[in-house]
Amino acid sequence: MEKVLAINSGSSSLKFKLFVMPAEEVIAAGKIERIGIKDSRVEIKYGLGQKYEKVEDIKDHKVAVDLLMKLLIKLEIIRDYMEINGVGHRVVAGGEYFKHSEIVDDEVIRKIEEIQDLAPLHNPANLIGIKAFKEILPYVCSVVVFDTAFHQTMPEENYIYSVPYEWYEKLGIRRYGAHGTSHRYVANEAQKLLNQPLKDLKLISCHLGAGASICAIKNGKSFNTSMGFTPLAGLTMATRSGDVDASAIAYAMDHLGISSIDEMLEILNKQSGLLGISGVSSDMRDVSQAARAGNHRAALAGQIFERTVVDYIGQYIAEMGGVDGIIFTAGIGENSVSLRAHIVEKLAYLGIELDAGENSKRGINNIISTPNSNVTVMRIMTDEEVMIARDVVALEASQAD
Amino acid sequence: MEKVLAINSGSSSLKFKLFVMPAEEVIAAGKIERIGIKDSRVEIKYGLGQKYEKVEDIKDHKVAVDLLMKLLIKLEIIRDYMEINGVGHRVVAGGEYFKHSEIVDDEVIRKIEEIQDLAPLHNPANLIGIKAFKEILPYVCSVVVFDTAFHQTMPEENYIYSVPYEWYEKLGIRRYGAHGTSHRYVANEAQKLLNQPLKDLKLISCHLGAGASICAIKNGKSFNTSMGFTPLAGLTMATRSGDVDASAIAYAMDHLGISSIDEMLEILNKQSGLLGISGVSSDMRDVSQAARAGNHRAALAGQIFERTVVDYIGQYIAEMGGVDGIIFTAGIGENSVSLRAHIVEKLAYLGIELDAGENSKRGINNIISTPNSNVTVMRIMTDEEVMIARDVVALEASQAD
Repeated sequence: MEKVLAINSGSSSLKFKLFVMPAEEVIAAGKIERIGIKDSRVEIKYGLGQKYEKVEDIKDHKVAVDLLMKLLIKLEIIRDYMEINGVGHRVVAGGEYFKHSEIVDDEVIRKIEEIQDLAPLHNPANLIGIKAFKEILPYVCSVVVFDTAFHQTMPEENYIYSVPYEWYEKLGIRRYGAHGTSHRYVANEAQKLLNQPLKDLKLISCHLGAGASICAIKNGKSFNTSMGFTPLAGLTMATRSGDVDASAIAYAMDHLGISSIDEMLEILNKQSGLLGISGVSSDMRDVSQAARAGNHRAALAGQIFERTVVDYIGQYIAEMGGVDGIIFTAGIGENSVSLRAHIVEKLAYLGIELDAGENSKRGINNIISTPNSNVTVMRIMTDEEVMIARDVVALEASQAD
Repeated sequence: MEKVLAINSGSSSLKFKLFVMPAEEVIAAGKIERIGIKDSRVEIKYGLGQKYEKVEDIKDHKVAVDLLMKLLIKLEIIRDYMEINGVGHRVVAGGEYFKHSEIVDDEVIRKIEEIQDLAPLHNPANLIGIKAFKEILPYVCSVVVFDTAFHQTMPEENYIYSVPYEWYEKLGIRRYGAHGTSHRYVANEAQKLLNQPLKDLKLISCHLGAGASICAIKNGKSFNTSMGFTPLAGLTMATRSGDVDASAIAYAMDHLGISSIDEMLEILNKQSGLLGISGVSSDMRDVSQAARAGNHRAALAGQIFERTVVDYIGQYIAEMGGVDGIIFTAGIGENSVSLRAHIVEKLAYLGIELDAGENSKRGINNIISTPNSNVTVMRIMTDEEVMIARDVVALEASQAD
């Protein structure tokens, strides 16, 4: 039995979950926000519904990690730092260097720094967290788990863009995808529900949250995914545009007097998607409510979101030459009964029938298509943190060999 | 019996076909190139394999039209200008104004001028041709046929981008599509091969030439299409990129020192697609030859092109909830036996089997799937000009009513 921390470090935040492994039991979870900003906030949930909250100034990530570790002792979640056997860090971009999770060493840090241009907001923040833990817990095994790594199995024809090939050779421009840890986790859970090994399955995983991506998983490997060079591409998202004709972007820049492509990217990342179409909200629950109240643009936003999900499902069925299972996961995918019902209705031509009773259940992993459907549709609750903890345990074991 | 001219006017060119209607017999066809440039070239094919060619300076489109009409008399193709009963002009962009072909009047010309920003290279050139014919043949019925008009039946959720909605309201940014005249023509031919009316059919039309687009045709109406705000989007094309993550474009601009989005559009329109990936050629025949000779990037270009075709077919099957017929047309679609074979092979999961004998035939419209296939696959030779001539005849008749 060992204790493993799963860490998601942002530029001014630090989220954590503390697992007991291999039981995969969460004994504490929380976040520190506004690091380096006045009135930083600490929140830790632990034990049987207990909660610690405090507002205090925390000047940097090292102080945050130091505070977190001291609180774990003070709240009697652990007795000694030595109880922590491993720390797993989420890293957004792994480029072509990282095809799976790795134990952190100087070379790994150098590579993450080298490719930080691929995720300029995220990778440096992830590195700050990695280094802070290295200082506070120097003897603990530290592992990096990449959002992109799972997709490194994509065949070339699925990741090369139809642009000058030199963009790939010299600048590394290609499809990298994201949400890899989630797609990998739910695929693993799907084989349990289907009672068939991943190597025999064609799956389509729909990770539908504020960020949303779909992944074609063939024989357990990512075959294609809807996010692209960055998480901007693919589906309509909360505030991200997904796929847009480049000439429409150029036309908007010319006619709105936007001279910088980076300014335009801000609009495509933060003012588009559900928010841009509906003008109401980036949150699907608000958008759906407005649609029910008769707001046309809100209804349209929902229809477009569903259409893009159906598009990618259709695309990946064609690319893989069929599909055995379709998975809905993440915020919208797990919780929106009506979204799943609409999508399954549109896929009726495949010989899929919704089990309305199963579809209305919450908080479990289950099959929501009827037994006589040709394709099995599942709702699976994703858990990127447990996947990180599992990778830590697996890499520690391989290191011990 | 009447004679109708179908005209495709470019900024320095004028292509024409002269039809006898309703027989749809072509009695002359040709082009005038390098108009306004030194050494303009005139070429007219007529009669039983006769050909007229001449190089001479032609200063503008009015002179070109005047010359063309005089040559039609001189070559004894017509005896009198009065024999020409109508002229149909291809116009690239019809915006939201034009949902079908229309007889030219001042209002129509004003609208085409108003929306010329949507196709700044093409619409002004098309207008020059329209006005030149109006001057030389003032009493002849003149009709405009739009590349975009067929797609005006698309539902809103298929044409609105997931960007700020004001882009649509204020700037008219949306999916317009293109190749509409071709998609409409081949759909019409498909119902003959299928012996079923269009209103009962779900069709997917693959117009695969140097420019390439796919159209989902539901009950005879365009339901969705792969080209977007302009013909840049969608499939991999000869030199056009099709769909690319906007952030990849921004990254390339930043790292290649390209400050203008219009300069980047030039690269995406002219140095991308098959040419950009392969580095060999924009012509699929050259790319295929290089691939057979072992050129990796050429092989990759072909695979990516085929993948994007399969992607959109899959997408539109899902959007329409099934498909009755798939059509291949235009240069590559009509002529590449191997491309059609590869695509059909990838669609085998739908219960489609290729009839290799039929697939290897040339110069005819035919069904290339076996009779027991679940979906009928067709090769149909497109003819945008005859569609233009038909629209002229139909609108003349409606005017006469």
